[in-house]
Amino acid sequence: MPRNAIVAVVGTGQETEPAVSNARELGRLIAEHGWVLITGGRNAGVMKAANEGAKRFDVDDAGRNATVSERARPNQTPNGLTIGILPNRETEISPDVDVAIVTDIGEARNNIIVLSADVVIACGVDDPGTASEVSLALKAGRPVVLVDASDAARAFFTQFSEQITCVDSPREAIKFTEKSLTS
Amino acid sequence: MPRNAIVAVVGTGQETEPAVSNARELGRLIAEHGWVLITGGRNAGVMKAANEGAKRFDVDDAGRNATVSERARPNQTPNGLTIGILPNRETEISPDVDVAIVTDIGEARNNIIVLSADVVIACGVDDPGTASEVSLALKAGRPVVLVDASDAARAFFTQFSEQITCVDSPREAIKFTEKSLTS
Amino acid sequence: MPRNAIVAVVGTGQETEPAVSNARELGRLIAEHGWVLITGGRNAGVMKAANEGAKRFDVDDAGRNATVSERARPNQTPNGLTIGILPNRETEISPDVDVAIVTDIGEARNNIIVLSADVVIACGVDDPGTASEVSLALKAGRPVVLVDASDAARAFFTQFSEQITCVDSPREAIKFTEKSLTS
Amino acid sequence: MPRNAIVAVVGTGQETEPAVSNARELGRLIAEHGWVLITGGRNAGVMKAANEGAKRFDVDDAGRNATVSERARPNQTPNGLTIGILPNRETEISPDVDVAIVTDIGEARNNIIVLSADVVIACGVDDPGTASEVSLALKAGRPVVLVDASDAARAFFTQFSEQITCVDSPREAIKFTEKSLTS
Repeated sequence: MPRNAIVAVVGTGQETEPAVSNARELGRLIAEHGWVLITGGRNAGVMKAANEGAKRFDVDDAGRNATVSERARPNQTPNGLTIGILPNRETEISPDVDVAIVTDIGEARNNIIVLSADVVIACGVDDPGTASEVSLALKAGRPVVLVDASDAARAFFTQFSEQITCVDSPREAIKFTEKSLTS
Repeated sequence: MPRNAIVAVVGTGQETEPAVSNARELGRLIAEHGWVLITGGRNAGVMKAANEGAKRFDVDDAGRNATVSERARPNQTPNGLTIGILPNRETEISPDVDVAIVTDIGEARNNIIVLSADVVIACGVDDPGTASEVSLALKAGRPVVLVDASDAARAFFTQFSEQITCVDSPREAIKFTEKSLTS
Repeated sequence: MPRNAIVAVVGTGQETEPAVSNARELGRLIAEHGWVLITGGRNAGVMKAANEGAKRFDVDDAGRNATVSERARPNQTPNGLTIGILPNRETEISPDVDVAIVTDIGEARNNIIVLSADVVIACGVDDPGTASEVSLALKAGRPVVLVDASDAARAFFTQFSEQITCVDSPREAIKFTEKSLTS
Repeated sequence: MPRNAIVAVVGTGQETEPAVSNARELGRLIAEHGWVLITGGRNAGVMKAANEGAKRFDVDDAGRNATVSERARPNQTPNGLTIGILPNRETEISPDVDVAIVTDIGEARNNIIVLSADVVIACGVDDPGTASEVSLALKAGRPVVLVDASDAARAFFTQFSEQITCVDSPREAIKFTEKSLTS
């Protein structure tokens, strides 16, 4: 497959809606585009949902209220490859992570997630961890998409640079990602 | 001296006012309190100014328009000890850093700055690097003081937690730090 | 593919024989077993050769004197997936790395390579970088195989623990890896 | 004090003799020379002993069988400044560390210790952690002194470079350090 595009999905480890449903849909769309999904790899919140979306079939189009099956995607690689950048050795890993990178550098691993991605998509920026990922991505010069961010987050981050785009839905985020990857 | 309190001053590497003057005054006040100053260690912007304030005598009270002398503080330790957490091996170091810690982990060193500090003071949050430091400090559970932050920064960060305090001047930041260190 | 075994191949960035030929053969054998190959990702020495072996067809059995073709493996995933853990943003990447993880933490990334692997195979331990990888792998409790190591290296490392095995050829290293992965 | 020389003392976290006694004497001598001591900061083995030596008075000349007093050195700074580079947030810190740098990057912090030091002194290289520190120091181009190392360690490391010197006692290590710092 040598070097498909890599797209990061970042966000809270809490089960916050619509962040988690958006992440699940983003995971599915990223897999369908043949991109590699990179996340923080934990078995929680946005990370878990994005990996789920990338690896399982019957997530419905909206990604909401979906019964997630145990069936893995039949044709799962290279589409659907999921990389988890784990903070610690003891971290509980999302079962839908294909390759777990154990950094043992704690929150500093956020910088590795964004440096390794061609585009960084944030599902909600409602917690300090995600705010650090968005900040580090901007610092690193990565294009960033905020999906369904609060007004405060939009106002704060858009002042920094033109690398950042605010959208309302996963589909728009993917559209922007496509454009960004081909430009 | 075993284990004086450690106070981090974080902020832009640009020569932005009033961030830089505030940092210089903070450095001086931190030294006068006998706390250890920790910064990103670079010879630029807020980092340079904070170290300057901690190590040189005739920074005037306001910290603004001061002629910074080459004379070192006569009685500089343990008061005035300055630690610089450098991102890279090639980083140009502030001449007023006493102990340079060479991390070679790039922006991920921001997490080390905030984890090592008892209180984190940000002079302006007007760039992604500083935003990552504030975010990581909140994630780590450190008390954070924003000095003269923009309305957008205040609105964004104060939603996360009660660990964060917004003030208008270095003196107020130090007052908060004192209270925080003794509570 | 969720979570195939991950095998690290570590060694010098120099074009030292037989380390480089051994690495190329190891890469091929790791791919044939359906394991994920993890390396330091650089376009040099053992790292380059291991990735080459995992991704290209006509490396001959011995791995030596092989004309490496430009043809990619026709059936390359999940067999043959190659992950490169890069030290820096500017690192030149081996063209046969599928997924490049940009750590920007310099040599400290050696710890991430070994923590992420189920087994660590070293091709020669003739330089300080590889010695650090073997040391960190032992510290982390990973099984380590030294292929064609010098007497001095064998004598030094085998004193530390029973996690370490010394063999003369890539095939023996793979045999040990198989046993280790199923035990 | 701006920028005294920094000397690292590395070694096992176990209570192994003569490593621990050598470390205690090294700490004392480093403090007496006005150098900054940097260690891994843990309250164990060589790290603890080196910090003890730097900060307490009645460690006798040989450093062995000394009753370590609770009295701090009366004139302890800048002589005797001790920096601990801690692996994790939960690490128990040596009580004689003046400034604790909390990296939370685990064993990868070994690279920060050696990069921050002008000279690296290893007390015994009898465990994988210390072996990684010596290896990373050589990789980083730092001068390294092995005190009372085993024959296997001497044979292994001296093959790499001329940066490494093997001595039998702390005094010889300090002599080498002096020469190295002035050359």
